[in-house]
Amino acid sequence: MKCLRDIGEDALIGKLLKGFPSGNLHTGPGDDCAVVDPGRGRLRLLKTDAIVAGVHFLPEAAAAKVGWKAVARVLSDFAAMGGRPEYLMVTVALPPETPVKWVEGLYRGIRRCLETHGGVLSGGETTAVPEGSAAVISVAGEGSVARGELVLRSGGKPGDVLAVTGRLGGSIAGKHLSFTPRLLEGQWLGRMGARAMMDLSDGLAKDLPRLVKASGCGFEVNSEWVPRTRGSSLEKAVGDGEDYELLVAIPPQKWEAGLKEWPEEFANLTKIGFLTNEGGELSGGWEHFF
Amino acid sequence: MKCLRDIGEDALIGKLLKGFPSGNLHTGPGDDCAVVDPGRGRLRLLKTDAIVAGVHFLPEAAAAKVGWKAVARVLSDFAAMGGRPEYLMVTVALPPETPVKWVEGLYRGIRRCLETHGGVLSGGETTAVPEGSAAVISVAGEGSVARGELVLRSGGKPGDVLAVTGRLGGSIAGKHLSFTPRLLEGQWLGRMGARAMMDLSDGLAKDLPRLVKASGCGFEVNSEWVPRTRGSSLEKAVGDGEDYELLVAIPPQKWEAGLKEWPEEFANLTKIGFLTNEGGELSGGWEHFF
Repeated sequence: MKCLRDIGEDALIGKLLKGFPSGNLHTGPGDDCAVVDPGRGRLRLLKTDAIVAGVHFLPEAAAAKVGWKAVARVLSDFAAMGGRPEYLMVTVALPPETPVKWVEGLYRGIRRCLETHGGVLSGGETTAVPEGSAAVISVAGEGSVARGELVLRSGGKPGDVLAVTGRLGGSIAGKHLSFTPRLLEGQWLGRMGARAMMDLSDGLAKDLPRLVKASGCGFEVNSEWVPRTRGSSLEKAVGDGEDYELLVAIPPQKWEAGLKEWPEEFANLTKIGFLTNEGGELSGGWEHFF
Repeated sequence: MKCLRDIGEDALIGKLLKGFPSGNLHTGPGDDCAVVDPGRGRLRLLKTDAIVAGVHFLPEAAAAKVGWKAVARVLSDFAAMGGRPEYLMVTVALPPETPVKWVEGLYRGIRRCLETHGGVLSGGETTAVPEGSAAVISVAGEGSVARGELVLRSGGKPGDVLAVTGRLGGSIAGKHLSFTPRLLEGQWLGRMGARAMMDLSDGLAKDLPRLVKASGCGFEVNSEWVPRTRGSSLEKAVGDGEDYELLVAIPPQKWEAGLKEWPEEFANLTKIGFLTNEGGELSGGWEHFF
C-alpha cells in the first residue's frame, strides 16, 4: 500500500485539493496565501502552516525561538503577497511530558514576534498528543494587502529582473529559528509594482522553478550573482532552504529607480537574473540543481 | 519540573494568553470564537481547533469520518455564536507510514462536511511528523454572523430559560465522528434573541458552569428534563462530552413563541432549567457533577 513517504507533498496536495469548490476565492491554493476579495477595502490573505518537533526544530531548541519561528513563517507568506498580518490563531499539540516552562517560553516567542511585526492573537488552543509523540505547532491566520499592491507568483513577464532579499544558505546554523519575515520589503515591492513574488522556504533551486512555472516564463540566472550567507557554498545557498527571503520579479523599467530608492534599513535587494520567454538558461554551475 | 499533565487546559490557556494585546478584537479568547468587527457588514468569527489520533479519534476510525469531525467541530463553534462558516484552512501533520488512501479519505470527509454545511477550503497543508508520532489535524477558519444576531456566552440574565438542542450522552458510540453541527439551529436562536450560547464539547456538567460564570448568573436545572440519548444514564448525559449540541439561554418572554415556531426539521430544543441570580440550585441528583 502506498504511504506518504512514497510520494511528494506537491503531488499529494494537488491530488487532495482537486474537486474542492473554490467559492468566491480571488486566488485559491497554490500561491503563498489564498486571497479573498471582500468587495471593498483591502484584500484578505489566508494562510495556515505548521512546524513539528524533530522536523522543523529540534526538541532541545529554545522554546521562545520555536514560537517565533512558528509565527514568522506565516508572516513571511503574508510578506510574499505584499501584505501585512492581521489576526493569528495558534494551535499547540503537545505530549503530556512537556514542561509548563517550555510552553510559556513558546508563547513568549509568539508574542514577541507579533509585537515586533504586527498581528493580533485571536485564538489559542492547546491539545494533548500521546506520550512520546512529536509536538506540533500550527499557526493559521489572516493578513491583508491594499488592492493594487497584491503580488502573486503568476504575474511575472519575460524581461523582468529576478531579485532576492538578504543572503541565502546556511539557515540551519540558526537563522531558521530567528529570521526576520520580510514584511516591510514585501510591502515596498508591492507598492513599487513588482509583478511576481514568493518566499524562499525550500531553497532557490526548488522555489524559483515554481515562480517561473506559475508565471509561464523561462529564466536566465547567474549563480555568481546569488548573495550567499558568509561561509555558504553555492550548493548550500540554493539548496539548503529555510531562507525566508523574498524572490521577486520586477519590470525592468522599474528596477533601477526601485533600487535607488530602496531604504537603507531594509535587507539588501540583489539581482540574480531575468525572466525569459521559455526554458532555463543557466550560468555558473546551476545545472545539477534543477 | 511541572509538566502539562500536571495542570488543566483552562488554567494553562489563561496563563499563556495573559498579556497578549487584544488589538481591535470585538471579543477575545474565552468564547467559542473570537469576534472581529470589520466596521460594516457582518461580524467575523475566528476559530482554530485540532484533533489528535489516539485522543479524539482511534487510528482505525474511518478516515472520512475523521475529516468530517475535524471540520464539524469548528463549524459547531460558529453555530454557537449564531454564525455560519466562510473560509476553512486545514493543516494535516501525519507520520510517513500513513497510507495515501487514508489521507484521500480524510479529505473526502472534509469536503463532504463543507458541501453539506457551507464554507470554502482556502488553504490545505500537509506536513510530516516523525514515524510513530500521532497524526494531528488542525482546522482554522473564519465564519460570520449578522450584526445583532451574535450570541456570546456572557449575555445570559437571571430568569432566562436554559435549553439544549438534541440529546446528550453516549457520543462515543459513534455520534462524535458523524454529528451534525447545529448551524441552522444556532442561526435561528441568534435571530430569535437568544442571550447566551455555547456548544457542548466537554459535557453539560463542565460546560454549563462556564456559560453561567461568563454570564455572571446562577442556575437552577432539573436533571430529569435533560434529554438523554437512548440508553444513556444521567451520568453519561452530563459527563460524556463530545455532544456538539447547543446550550442556550433564552429570555422567558421569547421562549414560548420561539418554541412554537421552532422548525420541525431542526433538532429538538428542550428546556432544562433557568438562569438565576446566583448559586446553583440543583434537583434530580446533579450534585456530584459540579
